[in-house]
Amino acid sequence: MTLLESISEPADLKRLAPAQLPLLADEIREFLIRAVSRAGGHLGPNLGVVELTVALHRVFDSPRDRILFDTGHQSYVHKLLTGRQDFSGLRVKGGLSGYPSRAESEHDVIENSHASTVLGYADGLAKANQLLGHRDRSVVAVIGDGALTGGMAWEALNNIAEAQDRPLVIVVNDNERSYAKTIGGLANHLATLRTTQGYERFLSWGREALQRTPVVGRPMLGALHGAKKGFKDSFAPQGMFEDLGLKYLGPIDGHDTAAVESALERARGFGGPVIVHCLTEKGHGYRPAEEDDADHFHSVGAMDPFTCLPLSPATGTSWTSVFGREMVAVGRDRPDVVAITAAMLQPVGLAGFAEAYPDRIFDVGIAEQHAAVSAAGLATGGLHPVVAVYATFLNRAFDQVLMDVALHRLGVTFVLDRAGVTGTDGASHNGMWDMSVLQVVPGLRLAAPRDADQLRAQLREALDVDDAPTVVRFPKADVGPAISAVERIGGVDVLRRTTPPGGSPADPPDVLLVAVGTMAQPCLDAAALLTADGLSATVADPRWVKPVDPALVRLAAGHRLVVTVEDNGRTGGVGAAVAQALRDAEVRTPVRELGIPQQFLAHAARGEILNEIGLTGPGIAAQTAAFARTAGLTRVAARRRPNGTETAPGAAAARVPVLRPRTAEAARTRGGDPHRGL
Amino acid sequence: MTLLESISEPADLKRLAPAQLPLLADEIREFLIRAVSRAGGHLGPNLGVVELTVALHRVFDSPRDRILFDTGHQSYVHKLLTGRQDFSGLRVKGGLSGYPSRAESEHDVIENSHASTVLGYADGLAKANQLLGHRDRSVVAVIGDGALTGGMAWEALNNIAEAQDRPLVIVVNDNERSYAKTIGGLANHLATLRTTQGYERFLSWGREALQRTPVVGRPMLGALHGAKKGFKDSFAPQGMFEDLGLKYLGPIDGHDTAAVESALERARGFGGPVIVHCLTEKGHGYRPAEEDDADHFHSVGAMDPFTCLPLSPATGTSWTSVFGREMVAVGRDRPDVVAITAAMLQPVGLAGFAEAYPDRIFDVGIAEQHAAVSAAGLATGGLHPVVAVYATFLNRAFDQVLMDVALHRLGVTFVLDRAGVTGTDGASHNGMWDMSVLQVVPGLRLAAPRDADQLRAQLREALDVDDAPTVVRFPKADVGPAISAVERIGGVDVLRRTTPPGGSPADPPDVLLVAVGTMAQPCLDAAALLTADGLSATVADPRWVKPVDPALVRLAAGHRLVVTVEDNGRTGGVGAAVAQALRDAEVRTPVRELGIPQQFLAHAARGEILNEIGLTGPGIAAQTAAFARTAGLTRVAARRRPNGTETAPGAAAARVPVLRPRTAEAARTRGGDPHRGL
Repeated sequence: MTLLESISEPADLKRLAPAQLPLLADEIREFLIRAVSRAGGHLGPNLGVVELTVALHRVFDSPRDRILFDTGHQSYVHKLLTGRQDFSGLRVKGGLSGYPSRAESEHDVIENSHASTVLGYADGLAKANQLLGHRDRSVVAVIGDGALTGGMAWEALNNIAEAQDRPLVIVVNDNERSYAKTIGGLANHLATLRTTQGYERFLSWGREALQRTPVVGRPMLGALHGAKKGFKDSFAPQGMFEDLGLKYLGPIDGHDTAAVESALERARGFGGPVIVHCLTEKGHGYRPAEEDDADHFHSVGAMDPFTCLPLSPATGTSWTSVFGREMVAVGRDRPDVVAITAAMLQPVGLAGFAEAYPDRIFDVGIAEQHAAVSAAGLATGGLHPVVAVYATFLNRAFDQVLMDVALHRLGVTFVLDRAGVTGTDGASHNGMWDMSVLQVVPGLRLAAPRDADQLRAQLREALDVDDAPTVVRFPKADVGPAISAVERIGGVDVLRRTTPPGGSPADPPDVLLVAVGTMAQPCLDAAALLTADGLSATVADPRWVKPVDPALVRLAAGHRLVVTVEDNGRTGGVGAAVAQALRDAEVRTPVRELGIPQQFLAHAARGEILNEIGLTGPGIAAQTAAFARTAGLTRVAARRRPNGTETAPGAAAARVPVLRPRTAEAARTRGGDPHRGL
Repeated sequence: MTLLESISEPADLKRLAPAQLPLLADEIREFLIRAVSRAGGHLGPNLGVVELTVALHRVFDSPRDRILFDTGHQSYVHKLLTGRQDFSGLRVKGGLSGYPSRAESEHDVIENSHASTVLGYADGLAKANQLLGHRDRSVVAVIGDGALTGGMAWEALNNIAEAQDRPLVIVVNDNERSYAKTIGGLANHLATLRTTQGYERFLSWGREALQRTPVVGRPMLGALHGAKKGFKDSFAPQGMFEDLGLKYLGPIDGHDTAAVESALERARGFGGPVIVHCLTEKGHGYRPAEEDDADHFHSVGAMDPFTCLPLSPATGTSWTSVFGREMVAVGRDRPDVVAITAAMLQPVGLAGFAEAYPDRIFDVGIAEQHAAVSAAGLATGGLHPVVAVYATFLNRAFDQVLMDVALHRLGVTFVLDRAGVTGTDGASHNGMWDMSVLQVVPGLRLAAPRDADQLRAQLREALDVDDAPTVVRFPKADVGPAISAVERIGGVDVLRRTTPPGGSPADPPDVLLVAVGTMAQPCLDAAALLTADGLSATVADPRWVKPVDPALVRLAAGHRLVVTVEDNGRTGGVGAAVAQALRDAEVRTPVRELGIPQQFLAHAARGEILNEIGLTGPGIAAQTAAFARTAGLTRVAARRRPNGTETAPGAAAARVPVLRPRTAEAARTRGGDPHRGL
C-alpha cells in the first residue's frame, strides 16, 4: 500500500510525519501524471499545487473549515486527499468531474469554473460564520495570480479588507501565469514582492533549482529547509495588499510543505483577513511540463507520459485553427483590425495573429469586462477590435456588450469559441447561453457559421459592420466538410430543397428545418430521413441568426411546419426569436424549436450529449416527425382529413405566396452583406 | 453678459485670466442650483466638479483630446462649457440629457451611465491613439473614488499600468462617496493618502473652511493659494497606485482651479499613465448640500433652492418604500435574512433595514458582481441574502446569478428596483432587460408584483425558496391601489373574468390579457374598453412569470387569443416565454406580446414613454383589437365566417377543455407557495 492509498480522508493526512510528506508528494505527482495522461485533463496546474494542497488539508479541518478553490481545475490533489482516488472515469460521463463537485464530496464547495469568484464566495462565507457565531470555522480561499486580474477579485479584496475582525485566509497561488503569463500592473507588483525578498528568494529558488530532478527518486528536501525558518514567518508590511488593509505573509515557497504549513498556521490564528503569497511552479516535478513555455501543460489530451505524444493524434482541423489562420490573413488586409484575448491567447487561436502583428494584440488578463469595454474604446478611437473569448465567458461582459458597445453603436466583433455543448468540462463551460442572452441587445448581429468557408466569410462580413456589435460563434470541435448552398435568398442559404414526393410544385413543402451553424449537417441528415418517411423537407441556414432575416420569415411562410435546430439553450434562443418574428409578421406556420434543454448539463463528451439531447440527424428527424404528426401534417394525415372544417396548421401559411426561386448567383449578390437588410 | 454666458466653447474658457475663474465658478454654481432645482437632476456631484471641469477644459483641447466622464451624471458643468447652456429642458423629452450624449455634442464620448467603465474606454482610446500615431491627442478619464470600487476599474488599472509609454491621465475625483460613503480597503487607502499629506491637507482644507460662505459674494481665493504652490506638484512615490506602476500625483485640492490646472499640465506632459488625485466636496458651495450627510443632494427633484422643499410634494407611496418597510418586518421574523446593496443603501430602500439590523446589512461598493457572489457565499454559509439593486445594474452580475447562485442551487433573492421604463435617466437606466435575460437561468423564479400587497407577499414567497435564485422586480413609480383577484388558479391570479356579451358560457372567451406586474391596471382598463367593443376579455396576473405556470397555459388554452403585456423588452421576455410554453404544450391559441420595443429609448418621463409605446389601457385595447381583427376574432367576424373551411386561430384551442372555475380560497391554498409547481 502506498502512502497515498492509505489516505482516505484528510484526518489520515494529519497522522503522517513531516518526513513522509515529500514521498507522498512524489506519489501524488506520479499518480497525476499517469491518470491525466491516460484520460486528458488539467495537468500543469495540479502538479503545481501538490505540497500546497497537502499543507492546506493538514492545517485546516475540511469540511468544517471551508477550503475553496478558484476556477477548480487545480482540485485534483484535493480530490485525491478527500477520498476520491478512482480517476479512471475522470471527465468521462458518470465519472469524476474535472472540477469540484458538490455531488461528489462534502469537501467541495464551488463548482463554477469561471475564474476570480473565490474571494467573493469566501467573503460571504466569512460573513456568515461571523454572524452565526462560528468562531471555530475557517474559510480559506485559494486563488491564482492570474485570477487576481479579474475585477471580481478586486471587488472582493476591497470588501474583505473592510472588516479587520473577520478571519479569512487568502492563499495566492502565484505561478506567474493563468494560461499564459499573467499580465498587467498587478503581475509586476507581485514580481516586485518576489524580488524584494532577495535573501528569501535566493534560498527558496536555490533549493528549487536543486530539486529539479525527475519525479521518482527525487531527493528529500535538503538542509536549506532549516535555513529558511525564521526569516519570513512574519507579517511583512509591504505592498498594495497592505495598502488595502490586508495583512500579507510571504512570499512562501509553495513546494515546501513545512514552510506552507507554518505560514497557514500563522494565518489561521491571525483573526482577520490575511494573504499568504505562495510561489509555485506550474507543472512542477514533471520535466516536460516545466520546460514547456507555452502553458506548462495547462490542459492536455490523452498522451504518452514519457514521449508526451498524443495517444490519438488529431486528424481534423479545429474551428479554432480556421479562425486563427483567417485572422492572420485579416490582419494583412485590414490594418485597422486589432485583437483582444482575456488570458487565452493560444486557446482562442490568436497566437498566429500575435506573432504576425505584435502591436495589435492585447491580452487583458482574466478580465472579460475589460476586454469588451477597452474594445469599445479602441473602436471609438478608429479601430475594429476582435474580442475572442469562450462563449460562456462572454456572460461576464454582458453589460459591457450591451451598454458600452451596442448603446454606442460601435463596431466590435466578438468571436465565441466553445459555443454550444463543450462537454467534458461540465456545466459552467458549456456555451449554451449566448444566442439567447444576446437576442436582447439592440443592433447586435450574430452569425453561426456552418463550415470553415462560412466562418471565414462571416468573420469578414462581421468586420465590415462598423456601427454595431457583431458576434461569430462556433463550437469546440473539428470543422466538418464544406456544405454548399443550392440557393441564397436574402441572407439565407438554402441547403436543400425538395419537391414533396408525389406532390405538385404548387403544394407548399412540409417542413422547413432552420439549421443554425453546425446543426447544418445533422439537419441535412434529418431531411433525408424525413423524405424517406414521406415528409418533404427544406433545410435553410440563416447564417446571420440575429436579427431574423425577413427572407427566412418568407421562407417559413411557404412551409407547413418550421423546426429550428440550434446548439444553444432552447429558452429564448434562435428558435424563440424565429417564432416571435413569425408572430409579428402574422405568419401562422407553427414553429417547434430543438436545442439544448435549459438545464445545467453534467459532464460528458460533446458527441454523447448531442446524442442524448437529440441534436443528431436521427434525433432531429424523429422529433420533427413527431411534431408533424401532432400538427396533423403527414401526407397521409393530410389526405385523410375528413372534412374542410378540420384545420392543419399549414393552412394559414398556404395563403402566403410561396417564394419564387431565384438563381443562386443573383441571391448571393443581394444577401452577402450583413450591413443591408440582415 | 455674465462670464458664463461669454463661453460658447472651451476656447473661450482658455482666454479667461486666472483671476476671473473664481467668479466663473460662482456663476456656474448659481446656474446649476437654479437650473437643477427647477427641473430636478444631479446636483451634488456637479457642484463638486466645477473647478475641476473648468481646469480640464483649460488644460486640454476637447474634442481632439478626449475628456471622458465616468457615469456621466457629473457632466453638467462640461455641458455648460461646451455650448449647452439651455437647461430649460433638462431630462425632459426632447431636451438636454442628464448624461453625456453624442447626439448633443462632439465633446461627449460615453453615454453609458453604469459606473466604472471610463478607465476601460480610456485604455482602449489610448491604445488606438498609440497605434494610429496620434501623439498629440490626450485621453483624460475622470472617475470618482466610489467607481474605483468596481471590478472594471481594477481590470483597467491593471492593463493601463502595463504600458508605461502610453499616455493616459486618470483624474480621481475623490469626494469620499458614491451615493453614500465609499467603502472598503480602497477607501481606507485613499484616506491614508489624504492624511499622510499632513501639511498639504492643512493648507488645502483650511482654505476650504474659509470659503464656506454662500455662493453669491463668496470671497476670492485668498493668500493661501500662493502658499500652496510648489509643495505637492511632484510625483509622489506612494501607495498602491505606485505599486501597480501608475504614477501618482496628489492629493490636489479639487476646488483650487490653479492647483488642478498645474497638476493636469504636468500629467499631460508625463508621457505615460498617471493618476491625479483630486479632493472635492460633493455639493460644494451650496450649504444645504454640503450639510446633508445622507448623500449631499446627489440627485434632487424640483425644489425651492432656498428652502429645499420639493415643488410638488410626493403624495404617493413608492414601490421602493413598500419594499423597504417590508424588509424591516422581514428582518424581525427571519434572523437568517441579510441584505446587500451596491453603494445604494438609500435609493434601494434598505436604510430602515440597516438601521434596525446593522450587523445584517452589507454595502459592497459599486460592485454588483461582488453583491451576487458574496450572496452566494452567505447562502452557502446558511443565510438568505436579499440583494437589492436597480434592474439595469443586475446585468453586471448576470454571470454570477447564473453560475455562482443558480448552478449552486442557492437561495438568494434579488430585488430589482427601477425595473421597466425608468425614463428621465435615459437609455442605460431603463430596466428593460431583466425579464428576458433571466429567462435562461435554470431554476430561477421571477416575480413581478402588481401592487403593494403582492410585493409584500411575493417577497415572502421568494424568501421561502432556499434552493434557487429568486427575483422580485418593480418600477420606479408610486404603487397604485390594491387590485384584488377574483380567483387564483395554480399560482395565477385571475383579476377579471367575463362571459362574452351575448355568448353562452360554453363558448371560449375571446382574449386572455396576461398582465405582468404593474401592467395589471392598464390591462383591466383595456379589458373594459375591449368589452365595450364586443370582445370578451379575461385578465390574469401570473404573479410568478418564470417559470411559466402550467395553470397559465391551461387558461390560455381556453381562450381564442392571448395578449401578454409587460414593462420589459419584447424580445425574449415574458410574452416570448409564454408563447414558447404554449408551443411546447401544443396549445395553438395565438399569442401576441406587448412590451417595450427592443431599442435604446431616449429620455422622457416614464408616463410619456409608456404612452408612446402603447402600454396604457387605451393603447393595450387598441393593439389587442387589431390583433383580434387580424386573427379574424371579432364576434362579428366570427359570426360572418362564410364556411367551415375558414379558420379562426381559436378553433384549435376550442378543443382544449375550458378550465372549471375553482373557489378563490381553494386556489389560494394550492398556489401560494412558489416552491411547488410554480
